[in-house]
Amino acid sequence: MKLEDLILVSIDDHAIEPPNAFARHMPAKFKGREPHIESRGGRDVWVFEGRATGYMGLNSVVGRPKEEYGMEPLGYEHMRRGTWDIQARVDDMNANGVLGSICFPTFPGFAGQRFQTHPDREVALAAIQAYNDWHLHDWCNAAPGRFIPLAIVPWWDPVAAAAEINRMAKLGVHAITFSDNPALHGFPSIHDPYWDPMWKACADNSVVINCHIGTGAKADHASDLSPIDAWITSMPISIANSAADWIWAPMWKKYPNLKMALSEGGIGWIPYLLERADFTHLHHKAWTNADFGGLKPSEVFKKHIITCFIEDDFGLQNLKHIGEDMVGWECDYPHSDCTWPNSPEVVWESFKHLSDETINKVTHLNVMREFNYNPLQLLGRENCTVGALRAQAKAKGVNTAPALGMGGAAPKRETGKPVTSGDINAMFKQADAETAL
Amino acid sequence: MKLEDLILVSIDDHAIEPPNAFARHMPAKFKGREPHIESRGGRDVWVFEGRATGYMGLNSVVGRPKEEYGMEPLGYEHMRRGTWDIQARVDDMNANGVLGSICFPTFPGFAGQRFQTHPDREVALAAIQAYNDWHLHDWCNAAPGRFIPLAIVPWWDPVAAAAEINRMAKLGVHAITFSDNPALHGFPSIHDPYWDPMWKACADNSVVINCHIGTGAKADHASDLSPIDAWITSMPISIANSAADWIWAPMWKKYPNLKMALSEGGIGWIPYLLERADFTHLHHKAWTNADFGGLKPSEVFKKHIITCFIEDDFGLQNLKHIGEDMVGWECDYPHSDCTWPNSPEVVWESFKHLSDETINKVTHLNVMREFNYNPLQLLGRENCTVGALRAQAKAKGVNTAPALGMGGAAPKRETGKPVTSGDINAMFKQADAETAL
Repeated sequence: MKLEDLILVSIDDHAIEPPNAFARHMPAKFKGREPHIESRGGRDVWVFEGRATGYMGLNSVVGRPKEEYGMEPLGYEHMRRGTWDIQARVDDMNANGVLGSICFPTFPGFAGQRFQTHPDREVALAAIQAYNDWHLHDWCNAAPGRFIPLAIVPWWDPVAAAAEINRMAKLGVHAITFSDNPALHGFPSIHDPYWDPMWKACADNSVVINCHIGTGAKADHASDLSPIDAWITSMPISIANSAADWIWAPMWKKYPNLKMALSEGGIGWIPYLLERADFTHLHHKAWTNADFGGLKPSEVFKKHIITCFIEDDFGLQNLKHIGEDMVGWECDYPHSDCTWPNSPEVVWESFKHLSDETINKVTHLNVMREFNYNPLQLLGRENCTVGALRAQAKAKGVNTAPALGMGGAAPKRETGKPVTSGDINAMFKQADAETAL
Repeated sequence: MKLEDLILVSIDDHAIEPPNAFARHMPAKFKGREPHIESRGGRDVWVFEGRATGYMGLNSVVGRPKEEYGMEPLGYEHMRRGTWDIQARVDDMNANGVLGSICFPTFPGFAGQRFQTHPDREVALAAIQAYNDWHLHDWCNAAPGRFIPLAIVPWWDPVAAAAEINRMAKLGVHAITFSDNPALHGFPSIHDPYWDPMWKACADNSVVINCHIGTGAKADHASDLSPIDAWITSMPISIANSAADWIWAPMWKKYPNLKMALSEGGIGWIPYLLERADFTHLHHKAWTNADFGGLKPSEVFKKHIITCFIEDDFGLQNLKHIGEDMVGWECDYPHSDCTWPNSPEVVWESFKHLSDETINKVTHLNVMREFNYNPLQLLGRENCTVGALRAQAKAKGVNTAPALGMGGAAPKRETGKPVTSGDINAMFKQADAETAL
């Protein structure tokens, strides 16, 4: 295989919702109450039910030079067009040789957290449905075969969540976004039968539960004086606590075909966690009553839990300990860990020791199977490769050169001093204060 | 090499302080104010300056059958004698073939946290020094060559901490216990120059900073309904956030010979973290001002940070990514993850693919070098092996059979239902309530 022959499907990217996303799909009854953009102190700010967002771009720095990765866009004009414009997004995917993409929500929170706590639940559900309709019809379906749609569900009513899953599944949606630990948001634990109607709807419709890092357990800023690099380093692995929690959760026995994904969690630490889980089971089950029906915890994980990587040489060297059938690739466009527009070159370096069969599994075949996604049939396999997609971008003249001075807020920076967690948090806190109603 | 030829030095065990530990060493001025044991509602309880402990054994379940690992000893009579009696401890080490041991404090907290927040700092410092004197003279020195002494330091005054380090170093102490993140206890961050006098004293005296899991960042209980197995699984890796924080900390440049240890952190996830740290540095340094003087973050880690394992096949298969010169073994006696009295058999299984040279490094040579510890010279190498030590235990008739019905508090257990985080936390909360003054 050559680099140009790769077929890349990313299971973790992000869309910035354009200003009209909700207005186009909110039911007439709630006209005027949909989430909308207001201009406030030079910022574009999402406002819903009297609550405003601080930053609406959330580290959407793709296309900037690395020197500007710490800046926060204040509005649409500070972001590369591909972050919010679907045609420009497809151009950017082509330029990076990326065939398919799962896009998490931004303003609603990666798991739609922002909609879960509004006192008026009728309008909150309407906003969730408007989001789902925009995401499916205006974003994903604008480029058939290029996206795996991902729905938000209401957490306060698992029967309503099941209904929304059923509604979206009829439209071809096989993925929802969910918190890796809803208990941290004040909702019942994943071990509570409360969620059964939702798990069942997912299992019945072959819908994968996607849990993005930061939607429950969070990477802690170790201290205000800690260099921000330390926090960035520990971000993906911070989902390990939740990963362990899902291994011991009860839905796998009840719904044997149910699947979930640890989005942006990385893979290199998984073999350690699985060995530790098996050790724990062997060493402690005599008093904990743990019962996997004769299986090992690692076997449960490998059957039900999808993991993914941006750049993870060590993980890819140890796929036999993870299970090469449940690993996928992610691009993380448009966030700062993203390797756009050189993702194929970056992953190719990690693939050198892998067989073509394994490469195809982790780049697209696993995801196609688990997410009921078949772009090859629709578009023709020969049109889906890195080489073919980049040729399209070249023919269209997509410009991928870093753009200087895109603008935005910047953390405090002093020569020779590290940018700290305190500096970054202060930047976000100020935005919250300035945009508060 | 045969199993009997192993020489095992553990860098993470725990002592339960016997009732007279402090009384014997508290200065006359504070006579009567030393930490002491009171009998309260059938419990042995440590009391210091009006504050009582809930449980004084903290999961000291060695010697019980696994069915009783979840129980909490209520007093000395509920614990195997080796937990608090130094001669019995040495017998238990012999029975397990363990030559050397670093013992963390129990009642004071693994890092001496309990002494750091008393309003009367003079008496708190006296208690710390009494602990250190007990630990060195009565515990470690009772069996020459068998222990690596570990001192507690005062956090509220790094100059006093340096003085205590200097005092203990003169007595041959080359290790202190410290929090992996003192900022989480309200003290300055490890990035604050506040700590410089302490780092300097450690560097000047070749003293290793030992940070045990749970002394700063903690494994979170994901939810009350989460099976306790999930929490046990994620305990060691919970130090990953702090590990990243120490990589980017400033003391390594200032004190190039300074070393620290991530105690009970495991090793299998380290290669992932180091690759992630290097990726972060390469990808983000342009805006974060991070500066390792041309080194990679992984190189800084490998030079300064000692890691250890109880049972970690995957980590031992990947030593080349961790650095085989900075890895040590741990027994974790008397806690429930401990593999006593079969530790040699357990680690031997993990060592099959390693050279004798590497086995000797990770079992004792690395630790002897880093901790200025030379038992082989003192005791004669031939007397230090698993075979020789077990022969001593056999000659003395040390009984290692699991003892049933040792007694203690038990979490709620119902047939067929998992023991949860909520059950365990309720057991501890009740003890705190019942022993409060």
